[in-house]
Amino acid sequence: MSTTTRFMLSENDVPKHFYNIAADSPVKPTPVLHPQSKEPVTPDFLSAIFPTPIIEQEMSMDRFIEIPEEVREIYKLWRPTPLIRAMRLEKALNTPAHIYFKYEGVSPSGSHKSNSAVAQAYYNKIAGTKSITTETGAGQWGTALSMACNFFGMELEVYMVKVSYHQKPARRYVMETYGATVFSSPSDNTQTGRTIIAKDPDNQGSLGIAISEAVEIAALSGGQKKYSLGSVLNHVLLHQTVIGEEALKQMDMANEYPDVVIGCVGGGSNFSGIAFPFLRENLKNGQRTRLLAVEPTTTPSLTRGIYGYDYGDTAQIAPILKMFTLGHDFMPPVIHAGGLRYHGVAPQLSALYDAGLIEAIALGQLEVFQAATLFAQTEGILPAPESSHAIRAAINEAIEAKKLGEKRVILFNLSGHGHFDLTAYNAYNSGELTNNEYPEHAISDIESHLPKVNIPVMG
Amino acid sequence: MSTTTRFMLSENDVPKHFYNIAADSPVKPTPVLHPQSKEPVTPDFLSAIFPTPIIEQEMSMDRFIEIPEEVREIYKLWRPTPLIRAMRLEKALNTPAHIYFKYEGVSPSGSHKSNSAVAQAYYNKIAGTKSITTETGAGQWGTALSMACNFFGMELEVYMVKVSYHQKPARRYVMETYGATVFSSPSDNTQTGRTIIAKDPDNQGSLGIAISEAVEIAALSGGQKKYSLGSVLNHVLLHQTVIGEEALKQMDMANEYPDVVIGCVGGGSNFSGIAFPFLRENLKNGQRTRLLAVEPTTTPSLTRGIYGYDYGDTAQIAPILKMFTLGHDFMPPVIHAGGLRYHGVAPQLSALYDAGLIEAIALGQLEVFQAATLFAQTEGILPAPESSHAIRAAINEAIEAKKLGEKRVILFNLSGHGHFDLTAYNAYNSGELTNNEYPEHAISDIESHLPKVNIPVMG
Repeated sequence: MSTTTRFMLSENDVPKHFYNIAADSPVKPTPVLHPQSKEPVTPDFLSAIFPTPIIEQEMSMDRFIEIPEEVREIYKLWRPTPLIRAMRLEKALNTPAHIYFKYEGVSPSGSHKSNSAVAQAYYNKIAGTKSITTETGAGQWGTALSMACNFFGMELEVYMVKVSYHQKPARRYVMETYGATVFSSPSDNTQTGRTIIAKDPDNQGSLGIAISEAVEIAALSGGQKKYSLGSVLNHVLLHQTVIGEEALKQMDMANEYPDVVIGCVGGGSNFSGIAFPFLRENLKNGQRTRLLAVEPTTTPSLTRGIYGYDYGDTAQIAPILKMFTLGHDFMPPVIHAGGLRYHGVAPQLSALYDAGLIEAIALGQLEVFQAATLFAQTEGILPAPESSHAIRAAINEAIEAKKLGEKRVILFNLSGHGHFDLTAYNAYNSGELTNNEYPEHAISDIESHLPKVNIPVMG
Repeated sequence: MSTTTRFMLSENDVPKHFYNIAADSPVKPTPVLHPQSKEPVTPDFLSAIFPTPIIEQEMSMDRFIEIPEEVREIYKLWRPTPLIRAMRLEKALNTPAHIYFKYEGVSPSGSHKSNSAVAQAYYNKIAGTKSITTETGAGQWGTALSMACNFFGMELEVYMVKVSYHQKPARRYVMETYGATVFSSPSDNTQTGRTIIAKDPDNQGSLGIAISEAVEIAALSGGQKKYSLGSVLNHVLLHQTVIGEEALKQMDMANEYPDVVIGCVGGGSNFSGIAFPFLRENLKNGQRTRLLAVEPTTTPSLTRGIYGYDYGDTAQIAPILKMFTLGHDFMPPVIHAGGLRYHGVAPQLSALYDAGLIEAIALGQLEVFQAATLFAQTEGILPAPESSHAIRAAINEAIEAKKLGEKRVILFNLSGHGHFDLTAYNAYNSGELTNNEYPEHAISDIESHLPKVNIPVMG
């Protein structure tokens, strides 16, 4: 009898509820501040860019939030996603560790981003939104929201970070096939973009800038357009918990329980999505699963950043959030994991990390691509550069388990495939990939870049 | 209660046997002829390029051939593949038809090609092969065999049709990540390639030429290298029947039985893979499922070709096969469905088509991309241009069912995803895609291009 390697749930097992960590987190939520007044925002301010159901979710303290049937029906196009035991990778590493991964790349858009995209499109739709603006880094979020908006018959404008826009034209073509309009950011469409281009015509863009542009368009649309964000905010993390909820059931099918759960972190949504349900079990049942966030050494928000109040965007028009940050004007070095080039980390995740409930490490681009290649050669799947940070960390855990001679159960989130990242693989294969310059100069001086706020006392 | 749309089998349902149509076909097998003597080939001739287990399968009349456990273990990385009911497409077409598709794009290499690639790599491995040569058109076969050879620790040289080599660099990078070496064909490595380049330096290549190159390298290697083909031959069709075997079980789960089964045809392997098990049921149980092969109007081998003996390759070094053909020196117009640019059709499939057991139609590139876009916008999945021929035909069937007011159960094979075909989508989205020139001149005069053979009488 051969070992089972794929743990599949049925359509009926698509989760019926999102899990809201706010209900169980031992850390109090931190307030969202207005970018000008630097006082806690009013619902009115948020209403200019978000629909009411999203604002309610953002503030909710309910432990479980029902997933609308219309959203579940679309999830069923690809969910439940498989949980796979990486037997061939284990064998290549000759490790006693058991390595499992949750594979979100089976989503039609190619990543976990579809989970929140479909939910956000739905909540916008029922709130009467006709048109949405957003940003995208590597293109995964833009692709997911393009698909989702198309499903609900809404228009979408995507501001795509310039470096990815040119590195990954195929991503743009996918978004256009789903019916979206895509602009290279910084663009001429916004005051933000025009100002940046005037100062620096060769600016390669960043998620911070692209967010500013998308927010500006929505904020100045007189209610005609709403804005949608693919990570960082509470409601996005909330939507992604379907990953961890399914994984809990599937680990049970495998008769194992993870010693460590791993995910890559840009804004923090895919990591939180797989980790928060396991964190709940840690808090509730005294489980001791380690939750390991992995970021690139070039954008080390958790491992080298400051925990403080900072703008969510570069142009200082998005709300101020308390988070681990490298400074809103941090220009991340160009690396191929474009989805991880964000200056901050989700406030909920930042607070939990600050409280010691989450671990974090930073990894270099070369060691990450080495892991990606080994994974492709053993498991067949070509992983996204972002997700490959989690693979590298899982491999490191498995190697350590071997050294210690212990059976360690490792679970990581393979958040997406790398079919649109082949120029990066080619650079690695031909020896041209580097670890890029480490931004010491920017990191030594973060504090001076943060806004001065009077930290308000929560009620 | 919502309708079930995804029919999933478990790992245990990965087929244990390949189905060999030769055992049930009412049409006698036609002999394979030597390219020089034009007499039936000896096993010795085939042994120069194929390993013994493959030759045995090629000639076998056994109905079921056991799938080795090592092959099944690798299949389990992605098999059983899902059968999905395209509810959202049905709704968009407002049709009473039920449209199902078998999705082979979940294979790590992105298409059905992995099914035969893994089997062929395995049989080569047990026969002691160290190194393999092959050709690839759009890159799907080359990708699949690269993955498979890597799994079994064998070297691979891929001759990739020049037009695809340049249109789809990402495909090459994937193959290289799996450890293969890729050459643009026609190349300088072979007499075949050098001769063609000397005559026509801008030759864009064809599958026929790429096959010649890969066969030449193997044939002249003194037994050091074997050759592997991704379609056309009996053993390749045999391996692909896992698709139809699973689909039979899954249609049963859906409590339906298809009125029509549809697949695109280049060499014929993905169509045969889904259709042959249903043909068996037609022959055995008197089912009346129509089996519909779909080819591009630019390479209309079945609908406009001749049923006769022709070389499998352009340089006349591969065996002569009896098949529907446009002539071995036919230069297919450049279209984006590169995997369908082959001059002939598998002998087994050709014979069944000639006997009236299979139907065929040809479709133009524009109507195919229109269907691909509608499919992406309704079902989310971005299909390969090749597979989109099957989608278009399925849509046409659904529209006809609506006109006739009948419930028709349609099953098509979605043989692969289109993640590496985005330049084609961009051309379509920007209105630059055309149907290409129809090769009337080449089609009016096929017979004069075929070799003169004395058709031997079979024992």
